[in-house]
Amino acid sequence: MSHNTFGKLFRVTTWGESHGPALGAVIDGCPPTLPLSEAIIQPWLDKRRPGSSRHVSPRQETDQVKILSGVFEDDRTGGPVTTGAPIALQIENIDARSKDYDAIRDKWRPGHADYTYDAKYGLRDYRGGGRSSARETAARVAAGAVARQILGETVHIEGALIQIGDKAINRANWDSSAIGENPFFSPDPDVVGEWEELLDALRRDGSSTGAIVELNVSGIPAGWGEPVYGKLDAELAAAMMSIPAAKGVEIGAGFAAAAMRGEDAADQMRAGEDGPVFLSNHNGGVLGGISTGQDLVIRVAIKPTSSIRIERQTLDRDFNETTIETRGRHDPCVGIRAVPVAEAMAAIILADQYLRHRGQIG
Amino acid sequence: MSHNTFGKLFRVTTWGESHGPALGAVIDGCPPTLPLSEAIIQPWLDKRRPGSSRHVSPRQETDQVKILSGVFEDDRTGGPVTTGAPIALQIENIDARSKDYDAIRDKWRPGHADYTYDAKYGLRDYRGGGRSSARETAARVAAGAVARQILGETVHIEGALIQIGDKAINRANWDSSAIGENPFFSPDPDVVGEWEELLDALRRDGSSTGAIVELNVSGIPAGWGEPVYGKLDAELAAAMMSIPAAKGVEIGAGFAAAAMRGEDAADQMRAGEDGPVFLSNHNGGVLGGISTGQDLVIRVAIKPTSSIRIERQTLDRDFNETTIETRGRHDPCVGIRAVPVAEAMAAIILADQYLRHRGQIG
Amino acid sequence: MSHNTFGKLFRVTTWGESHGPALGAVIDGCPPTLPLSEAIIQPWLDKRRPGSSRHVSPRQETDQVKILSGVFEDDRTGGPVTTGAPIALQIENIDARSKDYDAIRDKWRPGHADYTYDAKYGLRDYRGGGRSSARETAARVAAGAVARQILGETVHIEGALIQIGDKAINRANWDSSAIGENPFFSPDPDVVGEWEELLDALRRDGSSTGAIVELNVSGIPAGWGEPVYGKLDAELAAAMMSIPAAKGVEIGAGFAAAAMRGEDAADQMRAGEDGPVFLSNHNGGVLGGISTGQDLVIRVAIKPTSSIRIERQTLDRDFNETTIETRGRHDPCVGIRAVPVAEAMAAIILADQYLRHRGQIG
Amino acid sequence: MSHNTFGKLFRVTTWGESHGPALGAVIDGCPPTLPLSEAIIQPWLDKRRPGSSRHVSPRQETDQVKILSGVFEDDRTGGPVTTGAPIALQIENIDARSKDYDAIRDKWRPGHADYTYDAKYGLRDYRGGGRSSARETAARVAAGAVARQILGETVHIEGALIQIGDKAINRANWDSSAIGENPFFSPDPDVVGEWEELLDALRRDGSSTGAIVELNVSGIPAGWGEPVYGKLDAELAAAMMSIPAAKGVEIGAGFAAAAMRGEDAADQMRAGEDGPVFLSNHNGGVLGGISTGQDLVIRVAIKPTSSIRIERQTLDRDFNETTIETRGRHDPCVGIRAVPVAEAMAAIILADQYLRHRGQIG
Repeated sequence: MSHNTFGKLFRVTTWGESHGPALGAVIDGCPPTLPLSEAIIQPWLDKRRPGSSRHVSPRQETDQVKILSGVFEDDRTGGPVTTGAPIALQIENIDARSKDYDAIRDKWRPGHADYTYDAKYGLRDYRGGGRSSARETAARVAAGAVARQILGETVHIEGALIQIGDKAINRANWDSSAIGENPFFSPDPDVVGEWEELLDALRRDGSSTGAIVELNVSGIPAGWGEPVYGKLDAELAAAMMSIPAAKGVEIGAGFAAAAMRGEDAADQMRAGEDGPVFLSNHNGGVLGGISTGQDLVIRVAIKPTSSIRIERQTLDRDFNETTIETRGRHDPCVGIRAVPVAEAMAAIILADQYLRHRGQIG
Repeated sequence: MSHNTFGKLFRVTTWGESHGPALGAVIDGCPPTLPLSEAIIQPWLDKRRPGSSRHVSPRQETDQVKILSGVFEDDRTGGPVTTGAPIALQIENIDARSKDYDAIRDKWRPGHADYTYDAKYGLRDYRGGGRSSARETAARVAAGAVARQILGETVHIEGALIQIGDKAINRANWDSSAIGENPFFSPDPDVVGEWEELLDALRRDGSSTGAIVELNVSGIPAGWGEPVYGKLDAELAAAMMSIPAAKGVEIGAGFAAAAMRGEDAADQMRAGEDGPVFLSNHNGGVLGGISTGQDLVIRVAIKPTSSIRIERQTLDRDFNETTIETRGRHDPCVGIRAVPVAEAMAAIILADQYLRHRGQIG
Repeated sequence: MSHNTFGKLFRVTTWGESHGPALGAVIDGCPPTLPLSEAIIQPWLDKRRPGSSRHVSPRQETDQVKILSGVFEDDRTGGPVTTGAPIALQIENIDARSKDYDAIRDKWRPGHADYTYDAKYGLRDYRGGGRSSARETAARVAAGAVARQILGETVHIEGALIQIGDKAINRANWDSSAIGENPFFSPDPDVVGEWEELLDALRRDGSSTGAIVELNVSGIPAGWGEPVYGKLDAELAAAMMSIPAAKGVEIGAGFAAAAMRGEDAADQMRAGEDGPVFLSNHNGGVLGGISTGQDLVIRVAIKPTSSIRIERQTLDRDFNETTIETRGRHDPCVGIRAVPVAEAMAAIILADQYLRHRGQIG
Repeated sequence: MSHNTFGKLFRVTTWGESHGPALGAVIDGCPPTLPLSEAIIQPWLDKRRPGSSRHVSPRQETDQVKILSGVFEDDRTGGPVTTGAPIALQIENIDARSKDYDAIRDKWRPGHADYTYDAKYGLRDYRGGGRSSARETAARVAAGAVARQILGETVHIEGALIQIGDKAINRANWDSSAIGENPFFSPDPDVVGEWEELLDALRRDGSSTGAIVELNVSGIPAGWGEPVYGKLDAELAAAMMSIPAAKGVEIGAGFAAAAMRGEDAADQMRAGEDGPVFLSNHNGGVLGGISTGQDLVIRVAIKPTSSIRIERQTLDRDFNETTIETRGRHDPCVGIRAVPVAEAMAAIILADQYLRHRGQIG
């Protein structure tokens, strides 16, 4: 994890700003002969795309991905497959309205990275947040689609939103098939109406709120992860915390584990047909930084969108006190579109850990 | 972060098992001419040392550190300073009672990494958990002491325990000076009695419980951190999640941010004498992955110790169903000794990010 | 150095095949506020460009670079400067005649990476050598131009060709100003005629030959380099050996050092106005892996172009014996265009080592 | 390759100074269940050990290695095997005569890294060269022995000395069985007498000379190496150039390739029983940075020992002009003991590339 590259054998480098001509990813270390085409990647981008409902940013981006390298016709099938060479993916920015941002050129938006980019780099591309914009995550999603080709069909990454604002789902209602059928990735159909009302109200107020994303990953065998610093959960935590607006990460019982007793927290084992069957999953599928073969359970807290139409106190770049309202086209809850991003990050970390495991143990 | 090395310019590699002859760390990339001696490192190890109260493991380890390389007499002062060469630190294991572990040689302790190490590596050093033992963290603490020499006096890392089991501190009572004066690193003197009772009861029951560690770090200037994957909070999250038994990490408001509104969550700014003054710190001192100059606020959830004397269901290495009680000398709440470990991890990440920042921006 | 990324703080990732739509580089870790525009990069690409004389490949590529990210208007000057975000550079392939390569689709060209790519990856993009083509080096040259902005005006990297085939320059004739005035980057004007004759004869024969590149780098202060494995000369050696067709690297006296006596090889020192003056430079400006402040002297041996019109024995992909003549548009001596590539590699390694030094020592 | 760690999946970190209490290596990423004991490592250290003939340093070091972690009894055989945890190796320094070095405390020895360490780090451990001493290579040799356990019996690394001073071997006399039977690792028994005379004369004069090491590595299958920057030959070049006193590296024909014609240099292929048979090996077993299945052929130029008893001009640390003769116990030709070091470096690079290959392609 450094600057704009992550992964060790499966390495993803991303680039691009919110209002530049394009953004993209270069994927290095992808195994050869995996089927890969734009048609395979595009559905994942469509899932994250803005403009898909009234509850996300109305910015119109088709987010069409182009593959510029690393893929060639397979001798046997004639279809395109990876070659082992770096895979360059590119997405053009189409609907960038940079003029919207003249008002914030010289002011720091509270909650955004405006001040910190200026403090670190001495300048910032203020158009839409530049590199700090969540638009950057389109490249992660595209790279995640490539990672999924390594993981194959047996690994299933299910992302869902389990809370918006202070309204959590009722876990008793969990229905995985519902996730794709509402604009919130909610597994609880009953909460959808409440969330719509909440977001409509927030949009009217020019305000925003946070959310909690949950990932459940099935199909990971026991043994992935590199203790003691490249632990599977440690790398997942870094990946999740690198998502814009993320403020917390939990594995399994997470913070609730603090209040448990040892005999309840330690997942007991019984003999199953293909190995251990665990009687609970408080550890979220990871013990000692290595996958147990159970489902991975990961939760990510996403803070409220910082771009709001409500006047806030701030400074300009000359340290004068002023106020700001952020106009432009924004998600009232960035947590929604964080779901496919979190899924992509998990896919990338898992693909990389799998290859590393195969290298060391294979 | 990979296997047993972390950091990029300030790199720490640790080694050693719970019941081997010794454990240690090699620190590479430490700047030269920093004062460093065993006397500088030892107090940090003493803070983490087992046997210091009835609430932690009674294993008797003096944890005396030896510096084997990387330090030489300074021409000017005659005192020992770093030379820029790798610094090898070593701590002998003295009170290792390997016989305690014959009973678990062929059984997997629930909640421990026994099954996963066997699944990954095909064998495990079962004596005290081998490499997966929290004893490994002594090397982290020693390395953290070196990192502090880079950070200097202006950076202050204050670790505290804010919850044991379901008993949280009262934040209104926060008194930093109290932290060092009770065996729990509690900043709330009033909770100490309750925690003593809780732990005494757990010890009688042969049970254990979890805890929450909080770090407050002052003195970090604005500008440290490498977006978008080497973000300061992402690397801190990985470092904290790599601590044995950690199950969750929060920065600033953390999971509570999910329920906030944008106008409350975005920390407003006013003009101060030396830069911005923030009216709140819901972001925990990090925006866009870069430090803001505010205090860093990090919380880590620690699960209950998995070594308990209560019978639990498990399997042996031949996948036969059996039960297990873990005897030996264990902490009823590993969260206590996680405090100096979390401090050390923060010191190492911060020292590394500082050097990287200096390299790129300096 | 791994797969397609090199550098540690200044990291260059390149992508693209000879006959794909484009090739490019993503540069991460470039310090902010450095002036950077396409106009600054383009001259370096022009120096490497094919089609510039009859002695290099007639392929017509304009090699126009586009900057897609990482640059923004400077507040003060209004000119474009780096922002600290990743810099994406892209060059389109225009004159790719893939049909030329149908003949080699199923045969392995001796001396090329055809067999090894098939052996490693299970398939290869046979069009012009795919990723193994020297066309890939255009991206290195573009990245090298960015590295030069870090190094600044005081560092001067002078690449020259000192031998083609068995015809070496006469060092007594060395005239740096001559290098840019002949199509061979020869510092010896007197050898140019001989080299023209040699290459014309080789081209008539459909043959090729090798060459030796020499780099002299001035303006590097004492102190860059990271012993004992990130030594300046070790990293330069890797960088040079990664250039297509490179078979040897020397620093200073190089292989001739084997025959010297200690009293001749050790460069003596006298006092100069600004530090030591060395009485010789057999060590090529590096001692113990750290720069001495003298000129760096690096030589790289380049083998003959493997694409020749002379029939050679080989195998097809089904391991049947066959013969091959390689047609298409090729350089009779790839060593010529290796000069700007070697310069670029040196610039990248030096920029990275400078930033690392600044991080650790600054 | 950075500072004191190299390798990517098989990572070696070394530490220790010439006259400190000990030196060592930590090996991370070694696959589990490989047999490993001190008895397996020791013979390789004995091969490099000083004091073994009158032609190398008379310093008396037994170089006994201790394994402090990462090894445990195998369930099946009862013998010690690797566990997948980091392997700490340690060698004590016994015969360190630091007083010998008081004379050079404040002077820079020409040809040594004295001046550059002072220039970089602001101080240096002057005792025996500190970290820049070739004594550091003992740790490389120990790590190389571990790497060989990964490579297995089929890979054979044969190092030999092919030139001392200006006296080269006669290749027609090459006899691999002779290498172990003379103190020079010479494959040509006939040159041994000449070399003895040469070295005796140099020792009488208090002078020294250089040498050329050649490695021939058999048993590497086609397919190892990571183009375009992690090429097998590029990483071997870096590894070889990191050896103290190395000034040049060649693969296959090396610098002689510059004078060849394309039809001679391109190794032709015929069909063999198990794949291609090459009619020559001018490429030294590497094409496009990937192994061909042929023998790897690597040569390394080693400069003369800089520690000589002949007076040379130099400066003291206050930049005053002075002279120096280096007394103490030194090798008249460090190239001899560079043979096992070069072998070890090759073993480490090959083990790492093998694991990386297995991860990406496996």
